[in-house]
Amino acid sequence: MTDDDTGAATRPPSRREFLRASGAMAGGAVAGGLAGRAAAAEPAAPDAANLPPNVPEWMKAPGEPMGNEPYGTPSVYEKGVVRNISKTLKQYISASGRTPLQDLDGIITPNGLFYERHHGGVPTIDPAQHRLMVHGLVERPLIFTMEDIRRFPSQSRIHFIECSGNPVYTRPYGKTASDLVGLVSCAEWTGVPLKTVLAEAGLEDGARWVVAEGADAAALTRSVPIEKCLDDAMLVYSQNGERLRPQQGYPLRLLLPGFEGNMNVKWLRRLKVTTEPAYSREETSKYTDLMPDGTAREFTFHMEAKSIITRPSGGQKLTVRGFHEITGIAWSGHGKIARVEVSVDGGHDWQTAELQEPVLTRALTRFRLPWHWNGEPAMIQSRAVDETGYVQPTLQELLAVRGSNHFYHNNAIWPWRIDAAGEVTNGQA
Amino acid sequence: MTDDDTGAATRPPSRREFLRASGAMAGGAVAGGLAGRAAAAEPAAPDAANLPPNVPEWMKAPGEPMGNEPYGTPSVYEKGVVRNISKTLKQYISASGRTPLQDLDGIITPNGLFYERHHGGVPTIDPAQHRLMVHGLVERPLIFTMEDIRRFPSQSRIHFIECSGNPVYTRPYGKTASDLVGLVSCAEWTGVPLKTVLAEAGLEDGARWVVAEGADAAALTRSVPIEKCLDDAMLVYSQNGERLRPQQGYPLRLLLPGFEGNMNVKWLRRLKVTTEPAYSREETSKYTDLMPDGTAREFTFHMEAKSIITRPSGGQKLTVRGFHEITGIAWSGHGKIARVEVSVDGGHDWQTAELQEPVLTRALTRFRLPWHWNGEPAMIQSRAVDETGYVQPTLQELLAVRGSNHFYHNNAIWPWRIDAAGEVTNGQA
Repeated sequence: MTDDDTGAATRPPSRREFLRASGAMAGGAVAGGLAGRAAAAEPAAPDAANLPPNVPEWMKAPGEPMGNEPYGTPSVYEKGVVRNISKTLKQYISASGRTPLQDLDGIITPNGLFYERHHGGVPTIDPAQHRLMVHGLVERPLIFTMEDIRRFPSQSRIHFIECSGNPVYTRPYGKTASDLVGLVSCAEWTGVPLKTVLAEAGLEDGARWVVAEGADAAALTRSVPIEKCLDDAMLVYSQNGERLRPQQGYPLRLLLPGFEGNMNVKWLRRLKVTTEPAYSREETSKYTDLMPDGTAREFTFHMEAKSIITRPSGGQKLTVRGFHEITGIAWSGHGKIARVEVSVDGGHDWQTAELQEPVLTRALTRFRLPWHWNGEPAMIQSRAVDETGYVQPTLQELLAVRGSNHFYHNNAIWPWRIDAAGEVTNGQA
Repeated sequence: MTDDDTGAATRPPSRREFLRASGAMAGGAVAGGLAGRAAAAEPAAPDAANLPPNVPEWMKAPGEPMGNEPYGTPSVYEKGVVRNISKTLKQYISASGRTPLQDLDGIITPNGLFYERHHGGVPTIDPAQHRLMVHGLVERPLIFTMEDIRRFPSQSRIHFIECSGNPVYTRPYGKTASDLVGLVSCAEWTGVPLKTVLAEAGLEDGARWVVAEGADAAALTRSVPIEKCLDDAMLVYSQNGERLRPQQGYPLRLLLPGFEGNMNVKWLRRLKVTTEPAYSREETSKYTDLMPDGTAREFTFHMEAKSIITRPSGGQKLTVRGFHEITGIAWSGHGKIARVEVSVDGGHDWQTAELQEPVLTRALTRFRLPWHWNGEPAMIQSRAVDETGYVQPTLQELLAVRGSNHFYHNNAIWPWRIDAAGEVTNGQA
């Protein structure tokens, strides 16, 4: 045992592992580049006891018959992979549930794990009774049924939605990737471009804002600049193929790609075209930020570039030294991710990660970097750069500019600390 | 009422609808091009009774609290959108359940509705107990745990999987898009390139095939040419972000993009590298085709280019004359979809449909064409052309070449008949 790579903590090393470690793996992982990404694991060598592998119990009798689950659910062995909801809230009507990012791969969030944030609970809406009214500064005020909406020319786009308080600036920041930034998810949305519907109604002079209202008990209301409404805004009714889930606005949601989550008004019932914003509760009392000079930032629409390493991440453990892939997600409300850089030495040196193609605008982007863990303590972190050139800042940089009263739009770099035992914890905690 | 567009069968026409019909809509829909795709619906005009819309019941009290569903499910109003499973099978162990394509949008199939096809039921596999053995013509036979597999460098790719009997050539062909071709679905898969794992084991001279075996009661076994294994084949463990569903091979599946579904071996437990194929049951007794000259087609790996209009499609009804978007899905096992053409006159004239970007290789591609239905009977159909130049054939062309004993690989153009009442039925039935 002359090579660090063979120091498996959980299994006795074998001759095979030694061969692997001194062969392709060392050349691959340490190099850190794509060309050397050949080898990773230290699998067991077959021996008399397990070649061929013993026939497992589940091959000895027929499995579950089809039809028990007309709508399928995950394996019973994945029952711990659920939305991350605090168990100690005073109430669950205005609350949030986070996506378990550390358990997910790729960029699509399955609908059952899409994050949720409600201000008045989740209404149960009969789509046959639901209406969308478009009025205000329009030539033709109109009321649409869902059937009307679905007859318009449609589009499908993959976009993230993120809560602006993801995370808030208040300590403690949490233990897992989900605790920290689990209020972001990504799906393929289908619906009608909002500009198509506005053209149907006809905008009048002075149309500068569109005030959107949800059909929940909070009647959540946000004002959207007309430029966004005539750009990539959509009225969406489907999410990852099927109709929206109730928690994401069934039967109709306003989608504003890259804008803070609460503006993507769920259960959408009304669009009023106006000259001035509504200055609603959610754009005055909430979703504004008091700055150190006493002014308040308001209408902070865009979610700035952000990234997080999801594996290895808080709550996980590296059980073997040697090759580990560092992977995570990056996104920007301003467009495509141009680059993600990863540091494994506390922010001193940075390497460029590989981005999974296709890189889509205002969508999660999966990044990956091969890494050789030598068993020593390490601090790993990622920073995103978007196509505008904007670079994800450190928490210290954000706090220096925004002060201690700032609450939303924390897009700080988030380091994970790895100790000599391989335990991964929050590097800012 | 001087315009066909206003002939709404389900609601009394209003002055507003008349305005819509004689305005933007007529210019848009009839032109049939993208430039004219502005207007679609005939929404109601607000009046004293409904301006603003009456406050619905679900706004008058808080909705459902968060946390009732840690893993979310669809709206109760969507409970009919489930996998399409025949109610009259003799058994449900070796059977199939189809994706309800006519109810879906976009290209991603939600995991709960992904089609399923099993030969020995669905095993319930403990991932901690599961092993993958790689042996045969390799330098180092290896056995991997799932933890080993997940340590390899990963990739995420969006690909379709399709059963080769989708549909079979046997009448009756079914009523809905799901009945016909619901044995195709599409997801974002994450896993490790198979070539990485084979490199770990080291291929020996004479390695020409890899025989894959599943850990189900059928021990389903298929032989895969080494060229595919060293190209885009993957060992996948996640599907649309989360771990594979049991019906799709939890915890590990072989993914062979573009190859017939059963070769994408689920519950993968063994890969044996060989010189000759195994000639297993599933490549001799099944999944071969007797041709008119008495020979049999075997090893028919690729799923050829295909498309289907999902809306309007069988079982649906056009309730109004005027604008309707024709939309559907196209795919090819040989690469990207280059073009989809749509005919609304029984195959006489064909128009080029718009393809939703990004168009991905060996993935479903959503196509759309604006259409003005004048209320007269029509026959609508789509045909796909892939990047190799291959053109989806008619059923008559296929039958002429393959004869009446042919069972699999029916990729025929499928027309839908629309009668004067707007009812949509199978054009081949």
